Amino acid sequence: MPSIDAALNEVATTITRTLEELLPTPEGAEKRVLEAMRYACLGGGKRIRPFLVMMGARLFDVNEVSARRVATAIEMVHCYSLVHDDLPAMDDSDLRRGRATVHKQFDEAVAILAGDGLLTLAFEVLADPETHPNPAVRSDLVLAMAKAAGGAGMVGGQMIDLEAEKASLDIGAITRLQRLKTGEIIAFACVAGAILGQASEQARHALLAYAHDLGLAFQIADDLLDTEGTAASIGKPVGADSAAGKATFVALLGVERAREQAQLLARQAAAHLDLFDEKADLLREMAGFVVNRKH
Amino acid sequence: MPSIDAALNEVATTITRTLEELLPTPEGAEKRVLEAMRYACLGGGKRIRPFLVMMGARLFDVNEVSARRVATAIEMVHCYSLVHDDLPAMDDSDLRRGRATVHKQFDEAVAILAGDGLLTLAFEVLADPETHPNPAVRSDLVLAMAKAAGGAGMVGGQMIDLEAEKASLDIGAITRLQRLKTGEIIAFACVAGAILGQASEQARHALLAYAHDLGLAFQIADDLLDTEGTAASIGKPVGADSAAGKATFVALLGVERAREQAQLLARQAAAHLDLFDEKADLLREMAGFVVNRKH
Repeated sequence: MPSIDAALNEVATTITRTLEELLPTPEGAEKRVLEAMRYACLGGGKRIRPFLVMMGARLFDVNEVSARRVATAIEMVHCYSLVHDDLPAMDDSDLRRGRATVHKQFDEAVAILAGDGLLTLAFEVLADPETHPNPAVRSDLVLAMAKAAGGAGMVGGQMIDLEAEKASLDIGAITRLQRLKTGEIIAFACVAGAILGQASEQARHALLAYAHDLGLAFQIADDLLDTEGTAASIGKPVGADSAAGKATFVALLGVERAREQAQLLARQAAAHLDLFDEKADLLREMAGFVVNRKH
Repeated sequence: MPSIDAALNEVATTITRTLEELLPTPEGAEKRVLEAMRYACLGGGKRIRPFLVMMGARLFDVNEVSARRVATAIEMVHCYSLVHDDLPAMDDSDLRRGRATVHKQFDEAVAILAGDGLLTLAFEVLADPETHPNPAVRSDLVLAMAKAAGGAGMVGGQMIDLEAEKASLDIGAITRLQRLKTGEIIAFACVAGAILGQASEQARHALLAYAHDLGLAFQIADDLLDTEGTAASIGKPVGADSAAGKATFVALLGVERAREQAQLLARQAAAHLDLFDEKADLLREMAGFVVNRKH
């Protein structure tokens, strides 16, 4: 069995190649926005969401092309959210994955449009017959992704995150913030393989429960990295969130309890996969990986 | 037969009501973005794209609820594009339909998110089983809308429009700009009824040809209004486009030839509907309406 690092690298390579194929070639008078869309997606990234899709799809013997296209669509949505979140009016970040953010490399107008273009392209990819021969599956994928990305998902979560700079949130409010902002799209990534494989309700529920715990563990680990990491290893300024006055799990729980909580959630996440055989081993390992990673 | 004004008003009332139903109720910590989404959609507007959907659907005896939901989804996409185009980094407009633009009424971050939320919600509406019982139809709608809204549609068109402030465009380039920026989504509005009604290829082609000429006629008429209108009647500052140094049909052709060209296109548009019976009369009238309107 390959180690999780090797498996992550393999998926990252595959997804980068698929992004290169699916992103439009920059040409014509609209060239700059197409260049910015590529820049936003092709500058590295751990490709954790695509990994979850690929590993989930493996449980149900889903066709490789289908899994790869859905994984790539989710990565486009993730990249769009980063481009818009980094804008001056939002988190105002100059640096992302160790490179200039899109509005710094291009300009604000291009960054707004590139985000819009990526979000739209993701839906185009999901609805394309090449993604799955059954239109009911494609339609389910679009519906699930729209729910995860919209006002009751990423958009709503980012709104709460902006409000959180003004008001102090309690642990319940911050858990909801994270469920919306990052949790719903992670849940979609985990369940996408089950949609593609038209799997049982039981299997879907197990994957959603896994995703729920994994998403929270992931976010707490992120907060810990933001507090303790170095700019070089995380690719963005250290302490940016706490400097912005944002309530984080670490600020509320303290470093020690936050770390314990992340470990507990990771073990709980893995336990939700008990009904699957060894095909789920990399998803089990993933739970440990997200809380132990150093960047 | 009702006059086109009465028919437009009737559609506008129906679509406003459907928008009110489909837009999420503002509540929770994410309330502001949901308020901004409503503000962006519920401040009036001629609802021309929904009208095209409703009239196109009538040709194929499409279920009223299906037509209304698709019409409303297209209006959401139209409103999202206005919210983002009005941003300071883009066209920097303070006024829209006689009211403060979304970033003026709320703030820039909320406006960016509200646009993102509307675009996402539009796809959710199209993919929802309530829109059509046949998932192949829903999936076709999503695919067609994504193509009309993305890099080869509205996003690409807005990018060219921004570049046009720097370089001077010839008539071919400006025609392509308008086809992408406004033409593709108008074409989708015109053909959506045929998708819902699973109509013949011949019917779809006729509607696309109609949409092509209508879209250009509409844009030339818009340029003429921008040159000749009053701020009160068009709801935004007069001459804003030419002041921004943008090439327009009027700047390139002159007022007289632009007016003739718009009339010619309107007649051509109507002629493409010859294969339909009197159910297409309001679409025929629409072609004249767009070039003769005063706001």
